Amino acid sequence: MSKEVNSESVSLCPLSTAATTEQEMLCIFGTGDLGRSLGQRLLQTGYKVVYGSRRPHSCGPLPPGTQAMSHVAAAQSARLVFVCIHRENYNFLETLAPQLKGKVLVDVSNNLKKNMYPEANAEYLQRLIPGAQVVKGFNTLSAWALQNGPSDANRQVYVCGNSLEAKQAVIEVATKLGFTVLDRGSLTAARELEDFPLQLFPEWRLPLQLATGLTAFFFFYLLIRDVIYSYVVNDKDISFRIMASLANKVFPIVSLIMLSLCYLPGVIAAFLQLYRGTKYKRFPDWLDRWMLCRKQLGLIALALASLHVLYTLIIPIRYYVRYRLAAHTISQIRENKTSPFDTTMAWRTDSYYVIGILGFGLYLLLGITSLPSISNVLSWREFSFIQSKLGYLTLFFCTFHTYLYGWDKFLQPSSYKWFMLPGYMLSLVVPSVVLVLKLLLLLPCVDSTLTHIRQGWERTDPEQERKKLLLT
Amino acid sequence: MSKEVNSESVSLCPLSTAATTEQEMLCIFGTGDLGRSLGQRLLQTGYKVVYGSRRPHSCGPLPPGTQAMSHVAAAQSARLVFVCIHRENYNFLETLAPQLKGKVLVDVSNNLKKNMYPEANAEYLQRLIPGAQVVKGFNTLSAWALQNGPSDANRQVYVCGNSLEAKQAVIEVATKLGFTVLDRGSLTAARELEDFPLQLFPEWRLPLQLATGLTAFFFFYLLIRDVIYSYVVNDKDISFRIMASLANKVFPIVSLIMLSLCYLPGVIAAFLQLYRGTKYKRFPDWLDRWMLCRKQLGLIALALASLHVLYTLIIPIRYYVRYRLAAHTISQIRENKTSPFDTTMAWRTDSYYVIGILGFGLYLLLGITSLPSISNVLSWREFSFIQSKLGYLTLFFCTFHTYLYGWDKFLQPSSYKWFMLPGYMLSLVVPSVVLVLKLLLLLPCVDSTLTHIRQGWERTDPEQERKKLLLT
Amino acid sequence: MSKEVNSESVSLCPLSTAATTEQEMLCIFGTGDLGRSLGQRLLQTGYKVVYGSRRPHSCGPLPPGTQAMSHVAAAQSARLVFVCIHRENYNFLETLAPQLKGKVLVDVSNNLKKNMYPEANAEYLQRLIPGAQVVKGFNTLSAWALQNGPSDANRQVYVCGNSLEAKQAVIEVATKLGFTVLDRGSLTAARELEDFPLQLFPEWRLPLQLATGLTAFFFFYLLIRDVIYSYVVNDKDISFRIMASLANKVFPIVSLIMLSLCYLPGVIAAFLQLYRGTKYKRFPDWLDRWMLCRKQLGLIALALASLHVLYTLIIPIRYYVRYRLAAHTISQIRENKTSPFDTTMAWRTDSYYVIGILGFGLYLLLGITSLPSISNVLSWREFSFIQSKLGYLTLFFCTFHTYLYGWDKFLQPSSYKWFMLPGYMLSLVVPSVVLVLKLLLLLPCVDSTLTHIRQGWERTDPEQERKKLLLT
Repeated sequence: MSKEVNSESVSLCPLSTAATTEQEMLCIFGTGDLGRSLGQRLLQTGYKVVYGSRRPHSCGPLPPGTQAMSHVAAAQSARLVFVCIHRENYNFLETLAPQLKGKVLVDVSNNLKKNMYPEANAEYLQRLIPGAQVVKGFNTLSAWALQNGPSDANRQVYVCGNSLEAKQAVIEVATKLGFTVLDRGSLTAARELEDFPLQLFPEWRLPLQLATGLTAFFFFYLLIRDVIYSYVVNDKDISFRIMASLANKVFPIVSLIMLSLCYLPGVIAAFLQLYRGTKYKRFPDWLDRWMLCRKQLGLIALALASLHVLYTLIIPIRYYVRYRLAAHTISQIRENKTSPFDTTMAWRTDSYYVIGILGFGLYLLLGITSLPSISNVLSWREFSFIQSKLGYLTLFFCTFHTYLYGWDKFLQPSSYKWFMLPGYMLSLVVPSVVLVLKLLLLLPCVDSTLTHIRQGWERTDPEQERKKLLLT
Repeated sequence: MSKEVNSESVSLCPLSTAATTEQEMLCIFGTGDLGRSLGQRLLQTGYKVVYGSRRPHSCGPLPPGTQAMSHVAAAQSARLVFVCIHRENYNFLETLAPQLKGKVLVDVSNNLKKNMYPEANAEYLQRLIPGAQVVKGFNTLSAWALQNGPSDANRQVYVCGNSLEAKQAVIEVATKLGFTVLDRGSLTAARELEDFPLQLFPEWRLPLQLATGLTAFFFFYLLIRDVIYSYVVNDKDISFRIMASLANKVFPIVSLIMLSLCYLPGVIAAFLQLYRGTKYKRFPDWLDRWMLCRKQLGLIALALASLHVLYTLIIPIRYYVRYRLAAHTISQIRENKTSPFDTTMAWRTDSYYVIGILGFGLYLLLGITSLPSISNVLSWREFSFIQSKLGYLTLFFCTFHTYLYGWDKFLQPSSYKWFMLPGYMLSLVVPSVVLVLKLLLLLPCVDSTLTHIRQGWERTDPEQERKKLLLT
Repeated sequence: MSKEVNSESVSLCPLSTAATTEQEMLCIFGTGDLGRSLGQRLLQTGYKVVYGSRRPHSCGPLPPGTQAMSHVAAAQSARLVFVCIHRENYNFLETLAPQLKGKVLVDVSNNLKKNMYPEANAEYLQRLIPGAQVVKGFNTLSAWALQNGPSDANRQVYVCGNSLEAKQAVIEVATKLGFTVLDRGSLTAARELEDFPLQLFPEWRLPLQLATGLTAFFFFYLLIRDVIYSYVVNDKDISFRIMASLANKVFPIVSLIMLSLCYLPGVIAAFLQLYRGTKYKRFPDWLDRWMLCRKQLGLIALALASLHVLYTLIIPIRYYVRYRLAAHTISQIRENKTSPFDTTMAWRTDSYYVIGILGFGLYLLLGITSLPSISNVLSWREFSFIQSKLGYLTLFFCTFHTYLYGWDKFLQPSSYKWFMLPGYMLSLVVPSVVLVLKLLLLLPCVDSTLTHIRQGWERTDPEQERKKLLLT
């Protein structure tokens, strides 16, 4: 706000007027839950509130200090009308068109399901009363949130509408109520806003499906390879291993694959740019969509990695493990043999654990920095440093951890039961490919070309170039 | 801001005026810590600052670029005056009433304790100088925060006041300083604002007291049942178990009970609505208060569950456990017995651990999504999906984990020492009740009635209905 | 915005005008990545967009609905011009000075390195076209962020400029685009803003260097003391212990030292204030800088402590540990000896672990509350309660944990190999000093004096006071 206007208005209007100004009158149509909560909150913020009701004298308990009147009277007394009624009852509003002309109508309605109606509620309202300025807004809030003011889950409010002034007026009210307002443009965005409260993690769907699919595949693969093989070939029932041992193989495998799938699209995109010689061509849609769900892929992978850590840490308190260790000790004594200390084994297993811990630590760091409140305070360079440099380091650590786990197992024929590769080998394919491709991209000549392209340089086909020159 | 006004003002005023406008003069009364910090910050943001002081020539080092003058002169040079003096010294301001008439006075004062004075400092100030427009604000910031601008702990600033213009002017300054402003309404909210910096986790008090009480009770209960019983009956000193083993029983018990207490009020509320046949009657106060501290109950329960996890994971490195395992192996050899491998035992203990891990994982997820920055970006449906659906799943996993822990212990007479039930049985009462009640609510007939009621339907007493009809 | 102006404008202008108002025309110079992304986003928000280009007919694909014209024509059609071209090409803008007079120029440019040019890009632009009102802004956003609107990493936008109106107009656009705007003052702040996207964790540098230095020192110290000593004196190769055992000594040592270094500056500051008798003297620069990086020190210490926890929890699954335990059991049987159960040992080790867990739990709590989104909702008193009271408790627990680890080891001559103290003893020096100094500060007489000083009281030198009295 420019200072002059403000200081003028201060000097022009005496105090009493200022006090009156503050007590702006707002109108609410509908005395249901939402209407009452909204009214109460508006009252607390210093507005005067009047309700429009079909039965102004028997509409139940209203917040003290407000009054109910007929829709006509209520509409006339305020510049801004909150429409807190169900869409099914909108049609009667048509009769109020003359009274609502020039008013700002705030449509706060929601539907119970997506695509229940051909047009958004707010657009329908606008069509019913073309003379009014309809603004969609507040619909992402529950009655509870409205009554108690902004809380954790509900600080942000979206509005959209065709009239700038009308939106401005609504934004003002929302800001006074303590909400953060995001303007989503014209009323055509109303449908999107009405879908907001109905959506359930749309961007998590694909990564979750992928995680479920991979988990199921590897579960059955390892079930056959470990448990069923042992039952059929050795006639030994080790089905109890399903609960912990098998899961502790499936989780890290899926986690590693999903982590590498976070970095694969970036590598593909880079090679695509190198091949095309320009960054100005759009990526294929599947690549775009893939890149947009990298964060979700990574977080699910992190969750699985955390489970892997917990499953690993409970190993020594498991009955089976304790039994086996004791049995090993007992057998050593009975056979009067002592297995010598194997320094290589000590180095290898310790390295294996330590690399895993460091990888998990970095992974946690990536997860923490992807928290909105942290990533908000990072500069672009910092954010990309963490998510790219540290991300690749994490991938490297986790892949190396898996290689160390394998060690020389691939040399033992017993690893290839029924011609099925051990699970850890399958999990190494994608991350190894990603790391090798990334190494290629880091070669000085490739890297400099890519940097050029990303700074806007375009490789021009010499053929085409010549043609262009001839034409001009 | 409407475009027209702005574009006009741009075209009307030449550049030089615009530059002058920017350098608005603000006045600060008081040259203490807060005054200096505020002045320095205002200077950095492009304001001119003048100090009002009783001793303008000897008031110590002021930020370079500012000047100190008498209160009278300072007050006249600015439209907005920050009052950075202690309430005890307010009375002298009364003499400045003529100079302060029409000015905006920003009261930034705090008290050392709650309820030190009958009225809020800002209200007192308004009473002293009725001609001024007093705005309470900035008082939640420390001098340090003011000087260094918004940081983690201090981004939000609250203001309240009776004059809309005055508040607007203050909000403008605060926004320029980089703060987020929340308008808390009229000056009657000043007391609340002055209590803000003095409050210490008010909403955590009840849950913390409950956690402390439950922890103390179960600690002494298990102390008697385990340690003292063993000392009295078996004459065996196992007091060393207090540190880890006993605590590792108390923590999960209290955690499970508190987790179920998060979900009990919701179930009670549902049954209350079913019984009343309407959702428009207020819940009893105790239920309201209970529902409002569910988040805190849950987070404390999560903290205790995390401790339980850590206590469990250190089991194998504890001296006592290692000693016992070695002793068991040694005795097996000396007695030349081999206990056979018990597959049921392997299944049972692995399941027990795995269910516990999954429950804890879900629990962590609930905790993470209750972080303000995460819950802010969730839609209402997503938030309630996580906190309700996943919440009940967590409760189910944790309860099941405890049942698996118990297994067939309840059949052994040794579990009932001194007629005291084992701790885990006590911990199962509340969660089992909650889960059974929730199952009842999920029965199709009950669920549909509840959904109806929550959508606003009201069951009308046929008796009353008939009376109504007769009356009309 | 004051209500009067708004309601007037609503009543004065008919609906059609309002619609026109909304469709404000904005101009973008440059059709590169940034220009296109910005244009697309502006279109979505309801602006009309025109591009200024050197080759308006062959500038590649522009967002549909926009048009490209010559710079002159484009500049004349809008009040606000986004300059999305590289600084290297600014000079040609000088020729447009007449057309750009009075316009708002938004400089969104960034440099590739710090200090590439003697003056900020925006200041250079202002110098080229003195008649325009240059505003620096949006430069912290990537093209991607601009196109897709505010996301996690990019919600905040900084602006600076000499003209208040110009800034206000830019802030308005940014707010409409959904960004949070922070005004950083006049155009002299442009250099700072241009450095923002280039900075890489400046406040983490010192703490990270310290952590690296300490880690390296203790690693080599313990390498000599443990591994090399054992190799030289006992001729035993225990180099495999480097991976896990040695690291698990280095991490907790460095973590404890860094945690205590978080609290040392506060203690020093208190003693400095006590010595000086006033709080109005500035602290030395090194102390100020130290205090400003306490959060980073603490978080790095927390990361190291977490690693320590993980390293400790994998102890029982390490090959070396399992081998040693089995060897111990076997030797007990072969020598037919039974070591009796040592209750003191059980108490001591359990206490040691438990205190460690509690310390780590508190530590995690400190870390979680330092998340921006949490600390934002804490009152000042709550924040300082957690970071100071709970912080000292954490330090006490961790120090006590280390003392319990040491126990009576300091009595055994074998602890002093090659006259080198064990690592844990070195780690105890700083925390013990901090705790003792803090205890001194908590003595009633010291505490009350300090509280007085912090409330603004100044101890006056009786000598000086007398002189003053004589002079007056």
